[in-house]
Amino acid sequence: MKRFMEPKSVAIIGSSRDTGEWSFNILEHLLTYGYQGKLYPVNPNASEILGLKSYASVSEITSDIDLAIISTPRVLTPQLVKECSKHGIHAITVIGQGFNDASDSQGKQLQKEIDDVIKNSQTRVLGPNTLGTANAYINFSSSFSKIRLEKNHIGLICQTGVFFVGFAEVALTGKGIDLGNACDINFVDGLEYFEQDAETKAVALHIEGTKDTSRLIDIAKRITPKKPLIVLKTGKGQQAARAAKSHTGSLTGSHEIWSTALKQAGVIQASDLEELIDLTRAFSILPLMKNQKVGVATISGGLGIITLDGCQNSGLEIGKLSPETQEKIEAISPQWLKVGNPVDFWPTVMASPTPMESLIGILETLLADRKLDAVMLIIGSFNEKWDTALCQSLNGLATAHPDKPLTTCIYGPYGDEAIKGLQAAGKVAAYPTPERAIRALARLYEYSQLQNRL
Amino acid sequence: MKRFMEPKSVAIIGSSRDTGEWSFNILEHLLTYGYQGKLYPVNPNASEILGLKSYASVSEITSDIDLAIISTPRVLTPQLVKECSKHGIHAITVIGQGFNDASDSQGKQLQKEIDDVIKNSQTRVLGPNTLGTANAYINFSSSFSKIRLEKNHIGLICQTGVFFVGFAEVALTGKGIDLGNACDINFVDGLEYFEQDAETKAVALHIEGTKDTSRLIDIAKRITPKKPLIVLKTGKGQQAARAAKSHTGSLTGSHEIWSTALKQAGVIQASDLEELIDLTRAFSILPLMKNQKVGVATISGGLGIITLDGCQNSGLEIGKLSPETQEKIEAISPQWLKVGNPVDFWPTVMASPTPMESLIGILETLLADRKLDAVMLIIGSFNEKWDTALCQSLNGLATAHPDKPLTTCIYGPYGDEAIKGLQAAGKVAAYPTPERAIRALARLYEYSQLQNRL
Repeated sequence: MKRFMEPKSVAIIGSSRDTGEWSFNILEHLLTYGYQGKLYPVNPNASEILGLKSYASVSEITSDIDLAIISTPRVLTPQLVKECSKHGIHAITVIGQGFNDASDSQGKQLQKEIDDVIKNSQTRVLGPNTLGTANAYINFSSSFSKIRLEKNHIGLICQTGVFFVGFAEVALTGKGIDLGNACDINFVDGLEYFEQDAETKAVALHIEGTKDTSRLIDIAKRITPKKPLIVLKTGKGQQAARAAKSHTGSLTGSHEIWSTALKQAGVIQASDLEELIDLTRAFSILPLMKNQKVGVATISGGLGIITLDGCQNSGLEIGKLSPETQEKIEAISPQWLKVGNPVDFWPTVMASPTPMESLIGILETLLADRKLDAVMLIIGSFNEKWDTALCQSLNGLATAHPDKPLTTCIYGPYGDEAIKGLQAAGKVAAYPTPERAIRALARLYEYSQLQNRL
Repeated sequence: MKRFMEPKSVAIIGSSRDTGEWSFNILEHLLTYGYQGKLYPVNPNASEILGLKSYASVSEITSDIDLAIISTPRVLTPQLVKECSKHGIHAITVIGQGFNDASDSQGKQLQKEIDDVIKNSQTRVLGPNTLGTANAYINFSSSFSKIRLEKNHIGLICQTGVFFVGFAEVALTGKGIDLGNACDINFVDGLEYFEQDAETKAVALHIEGTKDTSRLIDIAKRITPKKPLIVLKTGKGQQAARAAKSHTGSLTGSHEIWSTALKQAGVIQASDLEELIDLTRAFSILPLMKNQKVGVATISGGLGIITLDGCQNSGLEIGKLSPETQEKIEAISPQWLKVGNPVDFWPTVMASPTPMESLIGILETLLADRKLDAVMLIIGSFNEKWDTALCQSLNGLATAHPDKPLTTCIYGPYGDEAIKGLQAAGKVAAYPTPERAIRALARLYEYSQLQNRL
């Protein structure tokens, strides 16, 4: 798997000479990312592409090649896989569609030809029907869509390119493997890589189906005590199962059996795409939550109440403040204010000559309270420029309290920008609603419980 | 209620001379919004504020005043309410906190004094503890936080200012009423206003609690056949109920009883804050969904499968394409592609010399298919500038098919920007995940069923 994830030299077979938006040129993207390994474009109709010497076939390349990316029409692919294998290339990513995902018999025939080449060889194939691999730490991706690479601590294994392209809140690559049709390289290979990988703190998995479920569950069981695995299993109903068959040729299996097996393996299951994104963000940057009690500082009493509703749904509790915390916050609040948890900080902060310092003081007090296991700030982003001083202070607080998760709910017309900025700083998780923040914290608690039981 | 919502002249009592970010100056905001009514600042220590003549008290103002906004420390408030009432002002918004929301007896005493003034008078009071009212159509809001006013078709009644400040995807004001402690003006008054209001297509309600639940349910029952009411009822558990008592002095009541009553009244219930935002956006811009069948065009087979999972959860179905639709899409697709619903449009569009036109053609075909009741496009936003041509085409399609909801799921690193742009154009609803889009469509179907039964 290392050749796919950390290639030092890459041949791009079927390298295009077109550039720009609709050309989907893998080589062009790699040059833009700043990939430092050796690149060998292969195209029989060109002698130079984007300033690099181009080859008529891989057999002309005399240097070692870690990874070959084949991006050609499907009918040419088996022959090219054969050439690569013969030339001693051990890792091949097949980008194209129309194999086991196709409805015709030719697709299955072409897949069989690939299978025959790699059987009993040292050559491994990723795909077909894939964006391949991505590794932000070496500025590498074989994706034909330009993707956002982000040096975060997320390892991703998926069966669709969507997860490579990523989402507004976060790029899931970190390091990523798109299995596509998974004719050879599969979840087990990916998990073995991430198990050992020092950069990866949490692994996100998008599973449509797999041939070897029991091996997947076995290795998951081995990894979950060490690293959190967050899974979105899709293809729940019969109609979805049929669609998965034609998407990646996968058999989805029974949802109930999957769910039970994943649970027994200690896997964190996301109920939908949004939860996968939310949980992955939380697990990749926050420490675990050791007990159930949350401390909340909120600008809005109304959102404080919504937070309580969220806790009720997710099995967390808003903890009672310790006497010292209570005292400290009362000392700086208007007398008429009933200080409790959630801490309704608006009247207190408004009464202060230095409102921002008061707010940070309240958060500091909550983080220091040994009766609280996580702290959440609820605040709005009211104008274009999210308060960078506050952002810095929050990161400082999180750094000073590395054993207690600090999370935020940021609403308001510019909330999305503020969330992205805070999240990218890599210390504080940020969500647009209290319920989503609480749901993520609840899973941090669940996972720490799981680790305690082991 | 008209005086609160459509005031032609406004006195601002306790009008501040400070300006800028931390001054929370209502008058300053009103001037920025471009409110065209008459403004009378009242402040005994100033003769002019922001270029306007300032008055020592309301009794000095000789012209008619539709609405007085009182923004002073709580102890001064009852006396000022009395002055206003005596001066013939029939609508008063009390901004300040520390009345029934306070923990001390003085707060309750001050509230009683206000109650005594308005009892048997023609004067109505909104608040205390409120941002008041907002009306984008006249560039008016009494909020001390600057809020985004948007001429959309949403009417809002809430018990916290958060909903005035709004969210990244949408400003819920349109027209808004923050009830705050709801000492006098309450949900019934707000609903009566929106029932008659031609600009309001959908009403969003955030309810912590109310004294007169049965009147609220009665009027809801009367309105729901005409306009959708979308409700987030908060304060579900005991801890939340206690918090609501100190937030707005509200009694939350039993969650089960509320839920049953709201259901019987034909109200659409949101399970959390995000769903309230999502449903309000859908109901304020989309036509209803007459039956259960969705047509999906997706760039990603994987997200197509996730959409099927969403349908299974929400009670919708991915419909079978009519023979004509099937034929039309097959005619422009690669032969190996199995065309079905979801329509996996990537191979088809990539095989076309004019990819964008092909995509619009597919959507047009789906919208014209009489066996489908809604259409959803799943696509990514891959770079900073969301495709404005596509955005325009989608709005054009929605305009040409006014009886069928067109919705989108837009993922990708710049998905959030694309969603805001499309949503703001006011024809196509846009969500970041397929499950959220499907959940919103499902409620459009449910509501049309409700209307059919009446």
